[in-house]
Order: sequence, then C-alpha cells, then structure tokens
Amino acid sequence: MRLRGRKGIREDLEQQQDLVVLNPEAYKGKWRERFNNDYPIHVEFGMGKGRFVSQMSVKNQQVNYIGFDMYDELVRRAAEKTRIAWNEAELGDPTSIQLALANIENIEDIFTPGEIERVYLNFSDPWPKKKHGRRRLTHPRFLEKYCRLLNSRGQIHFKTDSETLFEFSINSFADYGLQMTNISLNLHRDGINEEHVMTEYEAKFMGKGMRIHRCEVIVGQDALNEYQQMRLDKY
Amino acid sequence: MRLRGRKGIREDLEQQQDLVVLNPEAYKGKWRERFNNDYPIHVEFGMGKGRFVSQMSVKNQQVNYIGFDMYDELVRRAAEKTRIAWNEAELGDPTSIQLALANIENIEDIFTPGEIERVYLNFSDPWPKKKHGRRRLTHPRFLEKYCRLLNSRGQIHFKTDSETLFEFSINSFADYGLQMTNISLNLHRDGINEEHVMTEYEAKFMGKGMRIHRCEVIVGQDALNEYQQMRLDKY
Ligand SMILES: C[S@@+](CC[C@H](N)C(=O)[O-])C[C@H]1O[C@@H](n2cnc3c(N)ncnc32)[C@H](O)[C@@H]1O
Ligand SMILES: C[S@@+](CC[C@H](N)C(=O)[O-])C[C@H]1O[C@@H](n2cnc3c(N)ncnc32)[C@H](O)[C@@H]1O
Repeated sequence: MRLRGRKGIREDLEQQQDLVVLNPEAYKGKWRERFNNDYPIHVEFGMGKGRFVSQMSVKNQQVNYIGFDMYDELVRRAAEKTRIAWNEAELGDPTSIQLALANIENIEDIFTPGEIERVYLNFSDPWPKKKHGRRRLTHPRFLEKYCRLLNSRGQIHFKTDSETLFEFSINSFADYGLQMTNISLNLHRDGINEEHVMTEYEAKFMGKGMRIHRCEVIVGQDALNEYQQMRLDKY
Repeated sequence: MRLRGRKGIREDLEQQQDLVVLNPEAYKGKWRERFNNDYPIHVEFGMGKGRFVSQMSVKNQQVNYIGFDMYDELVRRAAEKTRIAWNEAELGDPTSIQLALANIENIEDIFTPGEIERVYLNFSDPWPKKKHGRRRLTHPRFLEKYCRLLNSRGQIHFKTDSETLFEFSINSFADYGLQMTNISLNLHRDGINEEHVMTEYEAKFMGKGMRIHRCEVIVGQDALNEYQQMRLDKY
C-alpha cells in the first residue's frame, strides 16, 4: 500500500478529471451537459468510500450518479472502487458516475433547482449531541435545500443504523411536511436480498447484527401524484 | 379471590351502571349528556385491565375518559381498578370515566362524527401474521373510522412495544396521509418521568428492558393549525 500525503492525494485526484470533480460549483446547471445524456441524476451525500454509489452506477446504466464527500481521501478511495467495479463488469471507463469533493452545506452552489431527481443519504453522521443537531444531514435546514434542488420526480432515500438519528430524521421529515413511505425499522429482518446494494457501513453494522432503518420520502409533485394512486394498495 | 363464571361477570357489570356501559350504542351522540359536562372525550381502544385510562381519569379531571375492551372480564377488572384509584385519590365515586364493552369494529355505531377528541391506542394486539393485518387497530380501515369520529382538535396517541406493529402503524399513518409528530423509537431512553402514566403492558415490557415506541397523529383541523405554528420550533 502506498502512503500518500494530502498533496499526493490532490495530485492523484487532479489526474482523474474524467471521474473526479474537485470544483463541482463549476457545473452548476451544467451537469446534464457534463454527462452528455438525458438520464436522471441521483446523488449520494456523504458517500464515504463509495461502495454504494459505484455499485449502483454499474447496475443502473440509465441513471447518472454523483457521489459527494468532503474528504479528498474518501473521494480517492471511491474513484479507485468505481474503476474496479466498472472494470470487473466489463463496462470500460466509468461514464455515468462522477465523484465530487464538496461540503453538503454548499449544495445550492452546485445544483440549480430541479437538476437532481434523487438524494441518497446513507449512514449519515449521527451527531448524537443535541447541540450538533443542525449538522445532521436530515435537519430541516438541509431538507429545505434538497427540496429546492429536486425535480418533479424527486425523492430522498435514507438509511442508517442509528436509532437516534433515524428517530430524529423521521420527525424532521414529518414536521417539515414531507410524505414518507416504505419506512422500515429493520431492513434485513427477513434476510438479505441478493440484489440489495449495501454501503460500507451497512455491511459493517449488519455483520454486528445491528438493525438498519430505512425510509423513502416523496418530494416532487409527479412522484407524489404517482404515489397517491397506489399508496393504500398494499394494505 | 372469588371465582366467577361469565354469568357472574355480567351480573356484576350490570350492577355498575354508573361506571360500566354494556350497551354503548345507546349513547351514540349522547355521551356529552351522559357525562353531564362540556369537557372533551378521550377514549382508549383496547384498554385491557384499565390501568392507563383509570389513572388518566384521576390525573385529568377536566377530560372525560371512556375505556373500551371487548372482553367483559377486562371491563370488570378496569372498573375495580378505577374505583380503587378514585378512592385512593379521595375523589369519591368515579364520574368523568366510563368503561364500555364493545368491539372497536363497531365504533361508528357508538359515536357520531366529532364526538371524541382523542384516541389512545396502547399496546394494541400486533397480529403479526400478514394475513391478519386488517385486524390491527392502526390499519387504514380503522384510521378512516377514527378520522370520521374525531373533532377539530382530534389526535391519535399510539404506543407499543412491538417493532413490527410500530413499523406497520407509522407506514399506515403516513400512507393514509396523516400528520405524525413526536415519534419516539425508545420512549424511556432517557429514563422514566414520574408523571408518565403507564399501561399494564408498558410496565411489563419496560421491566424486561424492551423498547417502547410512541407517536402522535394530528387529525383535526384546529389541532393541525396549532401544530403548524410550532412544528419547526424544536429544531
Ligand atoms: C458515516 S459515513 C457513511 C459513508 C457511506 N455513506 C456508507 O454508508 O458507508 C458519513 C460520510 O459522510 C461524510 N459527510 C458528513 N458530513 C458531510 C458534509 N457536510 N458534506 C459532505 N460529506 C459529509 C463523511 O465525510 C463520511 O464519509
Ligand atoms: C395487548 S392488550 C393491551 C392492553 C392495555 N392497553 C395495555 O397497554 O396494557 C390489547 C387489548 O385490546 C383489546 N382488543 C383488541 N382488539 C379489540 C377490538 N377489536 N375491540 C375491542 N378491544 C380489543 C384486547 O381485548 C386486549 O385487552
């Protein structure tokens, strides 16, 4: 394993401008051009080492993915993982995925309203202290940003091991007036689906026998209309 | 302890017409008259032995309570418990509480729209099998009934130990389009409040260290308006 200083990481990332975006603000309103197609854009905020977003991009070729993290070392790991995943799947160089260095605080400098269709929040930092509540990525002040950026088919998909973060988050969604559905308090209660794409943290916590919580939030008006048609069918 | 057959129970209940209602349909639209005051009516559906509803009636003298169960033996136990609780509190004979024998299936034969202000569902039978889902008291077909009967300040307060019933129920509330708030995945995480009124099941499950889940559902329009004013204040 090579050891690298921060400078080395930056240099490495700068060499990967096909996959890595160090200045995502530059693409505000222009992500569609960058992907050079009309597929919807799904983002993961806080992707960590990128297992989830890289595997999703391999599985779903008609979706554009952008994984975000605020640590360059994690963006580097995610880039490595993405190239390996695309290579193993014999898909050639990654095209429909980008890995971006950014703090989610600034997400409105990176996208224009309606530019994204889905937000994934996977195992977001729980910030357990009450005084740090504003930093949780499901705090109403973040929901406000996400809602502005999501398009008419927009959804938020959230999963976490943390009971307290999940409790906080479903209250935040409810109090912010958002429509939740498919809430699960124990995602893998009935075993694991082969097709299920896990994150690094998910695999780790599953291994320890911890419960994973998950829920979907329907934001966009077209998505809401479609949901209305079938919301009670499962009962 | 006296042993009593079913006949004995019925005779016993018939002697207690000040407190026990064996034919609640007879009071449809007339509960206010029966209580002979203008206080709101809070009901518990599936009260069991009645610890919760009897203690609530002692604590909150400006609320009328009606506890329901479908088993006469439980109504009898609840009546006993209520008399003891009022006696110990030196309140004399119970007046602002009634204990009624009924199946919640028939609740629309028992109340007119707007006649009740709050529904408590405490540790409702979980009916774990999927095919029995329709029997759960938080199934959308029950929510429909409750919503018709609740007044403009109407709320539903739900608590349970059952992770699967809670998961089912918050999905049911969300998919039915109801406003949840104060969702808790572990009600006693921070210890027990002296003032907290426990149910029999709650005390039992707490003793075993099990998590209690709870949530409130805001139904009536005035209650919703009030909630709107402060829903984000806590963040
Ligand atoms: C607990 S890890 C989870 C990683 C991955 N989603 C998973 O499930 O394995 C949370 C990640 O979010 C990133 N993160 C936290 N707050 C962030 C923010 N405000 N902006 C960008 N990334 C953030 C952290 O750097 C970390 O990599
Ligand atoms: C698990 S016990 C909980 C009792 C009490 N609420 C507590 O928390 O200790 C559920 C109660 O609901 C009653 N119940 C269930 N379904 C009912 C129905 N459809 N109508 C009336 N009572 C019902 C049962 O008889 C039982 O006493």
